[in-house]
Amino acid sequence: MSKLVIVGTVAFDAIETPFGKTDKILGGAATYIGLSASNFNVDAAAVSVVGGDFPQEYLDLLTNRGVNIDGIEIIKEGKTFFWSGKYHNDMNSRDTLATELNVLEHFNPVVPGDYKDADIVMLGNLHPSVQQSVLDQMTTKPKLAILDTMNFWMDIALDDLKSVIKNVDVITINDEEARQLSGEYSLVVAARKIHEMGPKYVVIKKGEHGALLFHNDEVFYAPALPLEEVFDPTGAGDTFAGGFAGYLASTGDTSFENMKNAVIYGSTLASFCVEKFGTERMLNLTDKEVYKRLQAFKNLTQFDIKLT
Amino acid sequence: MSKLVIVGTVAFDAIETPFGKTDKILGGAATYIGLSASNFNVDAAAVSVVGGDFPQEYLDLLTNRGVNIDGIEIIKEGKTFFWSGKYHNDMNSRDTLATELNVLEHFNPVVPGDYKDADIVMLGNLHPSVQQSVLDQMTTKPKLAILDTMNFWMDIALDDLKSVIKNVDVITINDEEARQLSGEYSLVVAARKIHEMGPKYVVIKKGEHGALLFHNDEVFYAPALPLEEVFDPTGAGDTFAGGFAGYLASTGDTSFENMKNAVIYGSTLASFCVEKFGTERMLNLTDKEVYKRLQAFKNLTQFDIKLT
Repeated sequence: MSKLVIVGTVAFDAIETPFGKTDKILGGAATYIGLSASNFNVDAAAVSVVGGDFPQEYLDLLTNRGVNIDGIEIIKEGKTFFWSGKYHNDMNSRDTLATELNVLEHFNPVVPGDYKDADIVMLGNLHPSVQQSVLDQMTTKPKLAILDTMNFWMDIALDDLKSVIKNVDVITINDEEARQLSGEYSLVVAARKIHEMGPKYVVIKKGEHGALLFHNDEVFYAPALPLEEVFDPTGAGDTFAGGFAGYLASTGDTSFENMKNAVIYGSTLASFCVEKFGTERMLNLTDKEVYKRLQAFKNLTQFDIKLT
Repeated sequence: MSKLVIVGTVAFDAIETPFGKTDKILGGAATYIGLSASNFNVDAAAVSVVGGDFPQEYLDLLTNRGVNIDGIEIIKEGKTFFWSGKYHNDMNSRDTLATELNVLEHFNPVVPGDYKDADIVMLGNLHPSVQQSVLDQMTTKPKLAILDTMNFWMDIALDDLKSVIKNVDVITINDEEARQLSGEYSLVVAARKIHEMGPKYVVIKKGEHGALLFHNDEVFYAPALPLEEVFDPTGAGDTFAGGFAGYLASTGDTSFENMKNAVIYGSTLASFCVEKFGTERMLNLTDKEVYKRLQAFKNLTQFDIKLT
């Protein structure tokens, strides 16, 4: 079975949307990525850090979905990373109400020995030097290194970010971040400039407008499934990345053609994530539900114009 | 050959974009719709009105592409409708600098006798009562009536608009207009409410984010081709509508499955329209170019996940 290493936050989130609000619930990039990747036949391990306040039952949720947690350090005297945000009515923008780094401030990720030869490394959104230190721990070059990041690191650690971007095969960012990173408005031109920074594949996430996959002069566009209601967008991008990485790891095929399928799987899983608060919808997702939604994605996008 | 009646403006446009500006050039909804539909094997006729200032050579451009202009009235002592607009840097918003209705103010469309039994009627953006009067002139019920409109008519003639909407099979509007017309933010819910107003098919245009086709509980999503540069978005929506209507007319098949193909053709033709100022790109478009871009659309959207 292919091995997938995931580094990212495991955290408490408190979320407010027009549909309601939560207390501190399970969140974090590595959590969403792991839960999403767990829908595939893959040996996934999360590398992260939590405080002594983090409930064992949350860790059990990951273990129950088959995500190895040996790489999640528990700092007993520390407090878990906490993020709180509020979504506006259109769900496309949000205010961050609180960010308490806590144990994340001095996070030194340690990849468990068994996973230093992982096939795929998924670097969730974190300080770029932390992402780099995970790559540095790999004893064999992974078949594919995927990096997710955000505008925050472009603002405060651009050099470190550019340095780690050079070393990855795939980058996943949203449209505004692609524009900021490249200085280009056109996403086609932005993707080309980001290619030149290192990654052979550039995935640009456009939320409700879907996701674009660029590779050389080729492009693939996966729409998002139009939903009656987006309940809580938190974690959708990480769930996308987890589905993308999990599918590629499970198939062992990192060709551009198979990456198109991976984008569709990522979009499919993200469409579930937003249906309930936090990780709720992802915790009991069944293969049958995923299968049915893939069928919906086919109906949504496939057409029959014969070109001879 | 199937007959297609197109009603809409034939006009002068003056356009300013970040790439330059034009004097008065050929524009108007019926112009773009007609030029786009002319890429199909269809007998298309434009119904419109111009003033004595309108150059014969502009009318010849339509005739040369095979668009019948018997229904374009020329009011010698009148002036042609004029619109002027300026696009912002992101190309997604524009300011209207001038709107001179001129001969359009008292426009009484007259469908030529030969076209009163047309298979498809495409009602371009105009006062809804003018659109209705075209429907009223048809001696046989068209196989498909398609209506395009805009927020302006929702603001000043909502009752007339709702009345004509009841009588059409397909409505094409953009996302913001769908929200305004339905009072719903979610496009899925908006489409359902617009269904209930009459049209069995609802097409929601999202510009660079593509177009959605809704029918009962089914939905199809055609992305827009990611372009390096959008030179001038003027007419893209009408070109989409013209490709949609022209393809349906030429195939004689108005099923939902074939409408998916029509949306792809519409998107394909619109992707050419924005490459140059005004109608320039559409005037000398070849079948070969269209074919190549359809192939690009296939590569853009088609994937190969086997679902058994």
